[in-house]
Formats: sequence, C-alpha cells, structure tokens
Amino acid sequence: MSSQPAHPTLLIPGPIEFDDAVLQSMGHYSESHVAAGFVATFGETLTLLRQLFQTTNPASQPFVINGSGTLGWDLVAVNLVEPGEDALVLSTGYFGDGFADCLRAYGANVTKLDGPIGGRPQVADVEKALKEKKYKILTVTHVDTSTGVLSDIKSIAAAVKKVSPETLVIVDGVCSVACEELAFDEWGLDGVVTAGQKAIGCPAGQSISMFSGRAIQVVQNRKTEPATYFASMKRWLPIMQNYEAKKPSYFATPSPQLVHALNTALKQILSKPLSERFSKHIEVSDRVKKTVTDMGLKIVATKPEDQSHAMTAIYLPEGVAIPDVLPKLLSKGIIFAGGIHKEIGTKYIRFGHMGITAVDPRRNDVDKALEALKTALGECGYKA
Amino acid sequence: MSSQPAHPTLLIPGPIEFDDAVLQSMGHYSESHVAAGFVATFGETLTLLRQLFQTTNPASQPFVINGSGTLGWDLVAVNLVEPGEDALVLSTGYFGDGFADCLRAYGANVTKLDGPIGGRPQVADVEKALKEKKYKILTVTHVDTSTGVLSDIKSIAAAVKKVSPETLVIVDGVCSVACEELAFDEWGLDGVVTAGQKAIGCPAGQSISMFSGRAIQVVQNRKTEPATYFASMKRWLPIMQNYEAKKPSYFATPSPQLVHALNTALKQILSKPLSERFSKHIEVSDRVKKTVTDMGLKIVATKPEDQSHAMTAIYLPEGVAIPDVLPKLLSKGIIFAGGIHKEIGTKYIRFGHMGITAVDPRRNDVDKALEALKTALGECGYKA
Repeated sequence: MSSQPAHPTLLIPGPIEFDDAVLQSMGHYSESHVAAGFVATFGETLTLLRQLFQTTNPASQPFVINGSGTLGWDLVAVNLVEPGEDALVLSTGYFGDGFADCLRAYGANVTKLDGPIGGRPQVADVEKALKEKKYKILTVTHVDTSTGVLSDIKSIAAAVKKVSPETLVIVDGVCSVACEELAFDEWGLDGVVTAGQKAIGCPAGQSISMFSGRAIQVVQNRKTEPATYFASMKRWLPIMQNYEAKKPSYFATPSPQLVHALNTALKQILSKPLSERFSKHIEVSDRVKKTVTDMGLKIVATKPEDQSHAMTAIYLPEGVAIPDVLPKLLSKGIIFAGGIHKEIGTKYIRFGHMGITAVDPRRNDVDKALEALKTALGECGYKA
Repeated sequence: MSSQPAHPTLLIPGPIEFDDAVLQSMGHYSESHVAAGFVATFGETLTLLRQLFQTTNPASQPFVINGSGTLGWDLVAVNLVEPGEDALVLSTGYFGDGFADCLRAYGANVTKLDGPIGGRPQVADVEKALKEKKYKILTVTHVDTSTGVLSDIKSIAAAVKKVSPETLVIVDGVCSVACEELAFDEWGLDGVVTAGQKAIGCPAGQSISMFSGRAIQVVQNRKTEPATYFASMKRWLPIMQNYEAKKPSYFATPSPQLVHALNTALKQILSKPLSERFSKHIEVSDRVKKTVTDMGLKIVATKPEDQSHAMTAIYLPEGVAIPDVLPKLLSKGIIFAGGIHKEIGTKYIRFGHMGITAVDPRRNDVDKALEALKTALGECGYKA
C-alpha cells in the first residue's frame, strides 16, 4: 500500500490512478542509461510492448521516447509522410482534428473525414474516399479522449487492405492501448502511437509506439530526409534495436525512472491474458453507461457500438454547468474532467475508467464515482 | 534517507546521483495536469527557473517540455532559424557537432568553428567569423559533456553584441546549468537549453529552457511557419504563460511526477545563494583535477581556463583500456563513463562531479571515487 497521504481519486481520461508499485519504480535510484542493468530493463520493456500490441512479427518495431503522447503524431507526420503527400484523417473529435493539424504542420496534404458529433465516419465513406485518391497514410483515433467515441479499427484496416493496400494504416491509440482490443498483426496495422498515462497506467512522459516492418521500410526509402532531429525514427531505430538486443546505445538520454515504471506497469498488465483485461474494461464501461443512462443522462457517443470502454463522456442535464458539478464531485473525493470538443465542450463531463480503476478488485473507484455523480447532480437541483 | 538498496555511486556526467527527496517526488500520486494543485506546482517551477537562469526580465520565457535534453536543440533549430538562414556553431566536442547536425536537419546553413581537441574556438576567431557573414544565431556548448571543455559564454556573448548585435546567442547548457556561472540577463543571452539529469539533479525526461523576449519575438515574426507540432514554441508559449499565471492550459500532457521532482530539486538549489553553489563546484573540480594530475594523468581539456567544473575527462595511461578500468571501478562501487569523442573516444574516461556529489557534505563521493581510480589503475599495472 502507498505511504502517500489520502488524495482524491483521479477519474479523468488520463492521467489515471497509478498502482503503488508503478509509482515506487519512479523513485528508482539513479542509473547510467548505458549500464548493463538499465539496458536489460529497457530491452525487456521493448519486448513486453510487442506482447501488449499483439505483434509477433520480428519486423515490427517498438519505440519508447521521452515526450508526451502528442510526440507520436510528430513521429508519424515527419517520418512516414513527405511534404505534399496525401493523408486521410478520420476524426471523431478534438484529437482527430489535432492529428490533422500536426500532419499539416509538416506539409502533408490532409483530407479529413469527420464523424457527426458523438459518432464516427462510416466504413463506406472511408472506402469511397480511398477510391477517389491514393493516400500515403490513413490515420484514425481509436478512442477520441474528447468524446469517448470508439472507432472500428479492424473494419477500417480491412477496408484499406481491400481498396488501397499500399496506404499505411496508423492508429492513435493514446486512449485505447491496454484497454481496447487492438491486434497489430492480425488487423494489419502499420503504426500505433500511444502514451503511458492512460490505460497502460504509467506516469506521463513517454511517447510509446509500434510500427510495422512496412512502415520502417517507408522511413528507410524516403526521397527526402525528414526535417527533424529528435523525432527522427531513422536516428532512434538502431537505438531501440540495440537496447532490445541488450546492447548499450545512445542518441538522446532516456528516463531510466520512467522506463522502470513502464516495465512494472507492463508486467502487471501481461501477468494475465489481455482478453481478460479487455473484458473487464467492457464490463465496467457497460455498468457505467447503464447507470448514467438510468439516471436520465445522455452519453456523447450516441450509438452503443461507437462507445469506448476506456471512458464515458456524459452530457450534463439542462441548467447544470461544469463549474457547478466538478467542485461538488471533488468535495466527494472524485475528479472528472470537463469537455473539450470545439462545439459542445461546455455541455458535458468526462469519466475515465481505465487501468487499475477497472481491473483492481480491491478498489471501489467506479461505484464511488457513480454515487458521487448522482449526489452532486442532486445538489445541483437535478432529479433523475 | 533512502529506502533503496545500496547501489554503486553514479559519477558519470549525467544522469547524476539524485537526492532522496527528489526521488520521492517522482512517486507523487496521480494528479490531473489541469487541476489547481498541479497547476500551482508547475507555475512555481517555471518561476523558480527564472532564478536559476538569473533572469528578472519579465520578457524572458521558461519552457519545460517532456523530452530529452536533445529536444532543446530542436526547439532552437525549428523555431529560431528558418530554412536557408545562417547559423554559426562553436564546437568543443560531440555535442557541439550534434547541435550543428540538428540545425542542418531543419535546413539551416551551418558554419562550424571547431576548437582543437581539448580546447575551444578563440574569441578572436568568433569575431572574425561574425564579421564575414551575418548569422541569424550563434550556438555554443557551455560544457561539452564529451570532453569537459568549458566555453567562455560571457566573452562570446560580448563579442556578438560588439560585432553582430542582431545575432541571437544560444547556449547549450545541458552540462552547465546549476553548476557553472551563467547570467542570462547580465550576459545578454537569447536562449539556454538544458535538461534535468545533470547539475539540476532531477531524473531525465524534460527539456528545460529559457528564451529572451527578443528570441520570442523572432518566433512570433517568422516569415514561414515552423515545420513541427510538438516542438513548436508558438504552441507552447501560451501554455507556459498560463501555467505560470496559475491558469490551467493544455497542449500536450506534461509529466506531473517529473515536474514535482524538478520543483523539489530547484527549491533545494535555490535555498542557498547560487554563487555558493558555483564556488563549491569549482572547489571540488579543482581538487579532482589536482589529484588526477598528481597521479600523473592528463586531462582532456588542456588549459585550466578551458576546464569545466561539472566533470573531468581524463586520459588513461598508455596500455590501460576503458574495458579494463571501468569494471574495476564498478567493483569498488564507482561508475564513470567512457569517452565519446570521434577521434579520441577510446583513450579517456569521464568523471562527473555535479549536484549533490559536489555540494552535499554528508556524501563522500569524490574522495571515494579518486581513491577507487587510483586503486583501479594500480590493478591495471599503472604506477603514479
């Protein structure tokens, strides 16, 4: 158990609550980034990521780089697309729009397919777009943290394989990796970018990604050099390969403490079958969604098949504002997040139910949160 | 005191040994990156950085961004220089060369002035170069971690002010901030980029920098948009300003744990006058250099005025190889680093004596290390 003082339960869609063992790994004594002990830990961590992403293809390449989850977008935008090349971005909210902005910043020619608010672009529309133009990459946000909309990655990847097999399929998995089913090899993905502080359950500070052998080939065969230094996959590639082969290597100093924390988090996750973990997240998510619907509230992600199992974005009742309800929740020891959608951001709140909150049976986070929500809304004058 | 098991003393030129309170801050319970408590801590941390860099000019702007120290080069290269513009890079080793590579990756037209091995470019040569061409920026590595060569930032900045006042003066302070005198305002610097894991004494994972109001103006007045997303100073600027004003703000998720650790480290550093800290580093460095010279060893940085106080790069005696001496040091509980200079890398070792190793009187790191070095070299057959 933690020696930390009691603190409110953090149930935003990331950062999430962290396990005590993960936090203790953050305080690991100082090590050289090229010493045998740390090299072994980093190498093992990279190998564990292969399991998490469900890839056994030796050509797949994991990357762990100091940065925020956002850095994953830059990795994709500067390494896999050359200026002037076409990218198809499927957007289901703020983060899909952000990925498009990032691609544009590096000179990609972006076509954005937007889902309706609370929904996702349909596979038929994606197929139609792919037939109209040859795209270098397609990007899709698995769970858009702004709306809680889930994308159907398997069907989209299948559509790309059918209509435009040369197009690289890139998934923003920041809010999905380690809680939503994501089968890198089986679905034929070319890149998944994520971060530690959501369902993986590791403090923020690392960009974590997996790229296919095909994506690595695209990087190696570019016509132009990518205009970046720190985000250059070509520079990081031998470093990651060396670490995984337990050989010291240097490009920029990793954070040994964050790598230890990620190692601990991954071992906890992989100590049980992933299928069990995904089922548990579905079970918890279903319970949350049923309870808030029973309270007469509406969920931002409209259709059940479009709803993520990582989080729930919940419309507030008429007359209840975010600045009223969040402090009332905090007074009951619960932290939710406000909305961040450009059109409806002030109208809803977000409840993250990932990681130990969903899978640790010793915790009572979800029930406590649902009870607190009911009471807080009552205090705001709302009757279910 | 630490509850960690005993571990060898890490005396490489970064990461360094960390204080227990700093490591404990790394295990801080999870917080929202936009909650009042964390916003206050981050805001205070940014303000503390102004003290550390010795700037009271309100136009100066600190940045703390998840990443490695290397990301600071990217910040400079993509934001302050437009493709095709001229940069003058003063190099005193591996890291000066790296900064030049980074600038070139973004399209800068780089002129590199190299010091001799173990030395630095002379101020007269810098003035001559500045007279020959109008440079957008000059970059200089304060302490090159590869060689332990110290640059005379004050004189170089004065030369720029005299000969080419429009040229921005940018310092790579990764291995100097918090151990070498560096007066941002007084010397008229436009940018200093650094990282936590050296003399600041905070685990790796953050790019820490300070830019002048003039540098920020250059970013704001660019003719072209910088081709980056995560490293865009324009995107980070309002975020940093909001945090320091204690207002929540979001672009990419910071690491609350690393920010807490940095906050703790900065408060420790700033609890005493900086001048005392710099003197202590000089005193320790002088002792190291005298002892190794008395042992008959040569220091890579040839002239006393070119020698950094952060670290000492020491040539091994004839016939003693790095793979012989480092394991012998480790068996005595001491970790030094090998060389990383392209021409002489196999011929020397590096001893970092920064942070708590230099200033914490309860520790005995330096004497233990010097004694271990003497014994280890003796075991390798060397007689002083």
